[in-house]
Amino acid sequence: MPLRALFLALLSLFIAPLSLAADEDHRFDDKLVAEANRLIEKGFKDEAAYEIIESLTTEIGPRMAGSEQEARARDWAVKRLKKMGFKNIRIEPFEVDRWVRRSESAAIVSPFPQPLVITALGGSVPTPKGGVTGDVVRFESFADFLDSPLTGYEGKIIFIDETMTRSQDGSGYSVAVRKRRTTANEAAKRGAAAALIRSVGTSSHRFAHTGSTRFSAETPRVPFAALSAPDADQLARALKHGPVSVHIELDVESLGPVQSGNVIAEIPGRTDELVVIGGHLDSWDLGTGAVDDGAGVGITMAAAHLVKKMNRKPKRTIRLILWGSEEVGLVGARAYAEAHKDELDKHFIASESDFGGGKIWRISTNFAEDKLGYAAAFRHLFARFTLAEGNNQTSGGPDIIPLSAMGVPAFRLDQDGTDYFDLHHTPNDTFDKIKLEDIQQNVALWSAFIWVAANMEGDLRSDSPAEETVETQ
Amino acid sequence: MPLRALFLALLSLFIAPLSLAADEDHRFDDKLVAEANRLIEKGFKDEAAYEIIESLTTEIGPRMAGSEQEARARDWAVKRLKKMGFKNIRIEPFEVDRWVRRSESAAIVSPFPQPLVITALGGSVPTPKGGVTGDVVRFESFADFLDSPLTGYEGKIIFIDETMTRSQDGSGYSVAVRKRRTTANEAAKRGAAAALIRSVGTSSHRFAHTGSTRFSAETPRVPFAALSAPDADQLARALKHGPVSVHIELDVESLGPVQSGNVIAEIPGRTDELVVIGGHLDSWDLGTGAVDDGAGVGITMAAAHLVKKMNRKPKRTIRLILWGSEEVGLVGARAYAEAHKDELDKHFIASESDFGGGKIWRISTNFAEDKLGYAAAFRHLFARFTLAEGNNQTSGGPDIIPLSAMGVPAFRLDQDGTDYFDLHHTPNDTFDKIKLEDIQQNVALWSAFIWVAANMEGDLRSDSPAEETVETQ
Repeated sequence: MPLRALFLALLSLFIAPLSLAADEDHRFDDKLVAEANRLIEKGFKDEAAYEIIESLTTEIGPRMAGSEQEARARDWAVKRLKKMGFKNIRIEPFEVDRWVRRSESAAIVSPFPQPLVITALGGSVPTPKGGVTGDVVRFESFADFLDSPLTGYEGKIIFIDETMTRSQDGSGYSVAVRKRRTTANEAAKRGAAAALIRSVGTSSHRFAHTGSTRFSAETPRVPFAALSAPDADQLARALKHGPVSVHIELDVESLGPVQSGNVIAEIPGRTDELVVIGGHLDSWDLGTGAVDDGAGVGITMAAAHLVKKMNRKPKRTIRLILWGSEEVGLVGARAYAEAHKDELDKHFIASESDFGGGKIWRISTNFAEDKLGYAAAFRHLFARFTLAEGNNQTSGGPDIIPLSAMGVPAFRLDQDGTDYFDLHHTPNDTFDKIKLEDIQQNVALWSAFIWVAANMEGDLRSDSPAEETVETQ
Repeated sequence: MPLRALFLALLSLFIAPLSLAADEDHRFDDKLVAEANRLIEKGFKDEAAYEIIESLTTEIGPRMAGSEQEARARDWAVKRLKKMGFKNIRIEPFEVDRWVRRSESAAIVSPFPQPLVITALGGSVPTPKGGVTGDVVRFESFADFLDSPLTGYEGKIIFIDETMTRSQDGSGYSVAVRKRRTTANEAAKRGAAAALIRSVGTSSHRFAHTGSTRFSAETPRVPFAALSAPDADQLARALKHGPVSVHIELDVESLGPVQSGNVIAEIPGRTDELVVIGGHLDSWDLGTGAVDDGAGVGITMAAAHLVKKMNRKPKRTIRLILWGSEEVGLVGARAYAEAHKDELDKHFIASESDFGGGKIWRISTNFAEDKLGYAAAFRHLFARFTLAEGNNQTSGGPDIIPLSAMGVPAFRLDQDGTDYFDLHHTPNDTFDKIKLEDIQQNVALWSAFIWVAANMEGDLRSDSPAEETVETQ
């Protein structure tokens, strides 16, 4: 860090408290704030979000990208949104590669025969008929594995035992997820027969966490699965006694492209500017997708509905997007960004709720540097909740990444994710984990955010054209 | 309750604290107490129990009654016990009906197709080829079900949704387990196609709890399985929308009698009296049996070893029994009681550790009424741990039930079981759930109990022959 940057960083520690007070140029209109406060009051009593999450997770259940269940979830959403009185309801279709899990099993063959709890990682190739058996080579960390030679692993089963750090803001995940993204590729490069990872997750329970992987076109693929934490412990303990042979069977298949879609509904505004909000409709197949992302769907649908029930036409159109096929690589988000690339300059702000059902504890933004007064204005709006102050680098949520990369200002009501990765991508992501009180706090703050974002004056992009660096993918 | 009994019960509330002081006739010798205290000190530093539990759950893993793994566990135990220097090490064989689980699955077929997490209950018959499909009839409680008519359920799937009360002393289990014992029989009587119960357990995680059932010879058997709590919730929610059809497939089989055995090891004493201690070696097949009952095996082996290392011949022989086939109906315990029925009068006291790895919080006894002074003496011995005072009706532990029923005095260092039924009989019963500190407290108190029981003066049976009501099974 250059000295000047260090000086500014240190300075910011002292001036940060001041930023709670919005400056004169960027403060919100008193009437708008009063309206937002009435929405907050209603949000804390709202039970609609909880009921929506219950309905989606019960009546649809798991809804994997490209599946019949995801299609049923879209129909469910369209029906609900119509009933709630939203306008311009439509499905914007796109294609996604469908991957299915039929069965999966693993066992220590020797020296201590016993089953292991695993789950295939999304996109994995199946094992050959009869499965794969091989001696396990364990790496304490992903870095150790990347540093390992490219030969000497022929026929072996690579096992990355790296743990994940529990974190409130999800930053532990960003580090831990790297092994899920590229281990299979790296194992294939090294001639391994298969690859296992300790699940990317923080649970100590016997659930394996699934999730998507990336395969490069150049490398042969190897079967790739995650062990539950207790099973990773068990395998590591067994290895202390000497060589351990493991058998893996994955009956999974990539079925090629099928149709998926984003469900869109609007509260039309008086201008052609847009406020994009939402959650993602798809889930992994193991659980019923309550925290990932039934919660986000319920919170944003209910918050938008509170706004809708004001019966006041906002300045900007509020566009609720229930994203499809998020889990397999933000496919719906990329399709939307591509389809709407000519109107991205009309996207005033975008945000997604996709971090579980926990309480909001922080605000993060991605506004132009000369518009940070509006970030302060939002913090001022929520001052009584004493939220922590995030940075100005948020993506706005996974499905906002493509928009954000193309210059759309992003905003995020950051949820407490301390326990989120106990459930994330496991069979244990079920409705009983949703707490009404936490969801209500989310709805309260989201409804205020939506109304203010849709009616505030000004612009969140820079006034100086040089700063408008619209990146293309 | 008659008035006189009520009066005595109320009186006991006031006199209970006095019982901490052992009376003159039943107090332990000062030297014996000093020796016990030295054992306690060592027990709190002992790591052997933890290591034994780790070894059993890693090197053997699941060890179902009558399985190859249970046989391997016996060999493991014999080898360990020899190395630890115990004497008269032997396996006392008996026969047990072997039941195997090959696969199990269930799904809501309509109106909301999705998989359900279930586990077959021990002893269940398989479903016919292709499985069973039927409409679900839900009962809020087991009592409601028992009150229901004997007809009108032909082809239906009975679902008992009764919950279990969390309790420190396990009393919630005694009530909740009734539905697991007899629902299948009652469902068969009513012509049902299959039966499901909400798992007997307290976990909110997506684990189904297995366990043994009882089938009467007169009634046809029906396939019988337990749902995880989140899946029971899901089924109950789905039923609020109308009829729900469920499909169940259980590939399980009763293979008939095979050999099992109790592993016995001793520290020989100077008389022919016996002190029986131990835990059970078998476990259910889903987990690795760490809390049920690797903990009891480790605690009693390590505690007896501390006693052994004193190199002092006790008055009574300390007989460590690692019981076989406990989970499928106390089969090893019944076989032992039968084989040793002629020497039961030599069994001075018996106790088992089989309630997980939690801390000891209470002492319970089953001594003759005129020997309750010794119960007070044991409480006095452990006074500094401020243990709660249990009653004089303990069985001494599941495998002590047959002995206790035949008049053998029983003792129990009751463990805190508040969280025990979160793990009990699930895949999640794994070594990582064992806490060294809690295990050490157990070893400390157990080693003192063993030494005192093996050397104390007196007798725990009544001096008045009229009270010696030896029940036969």
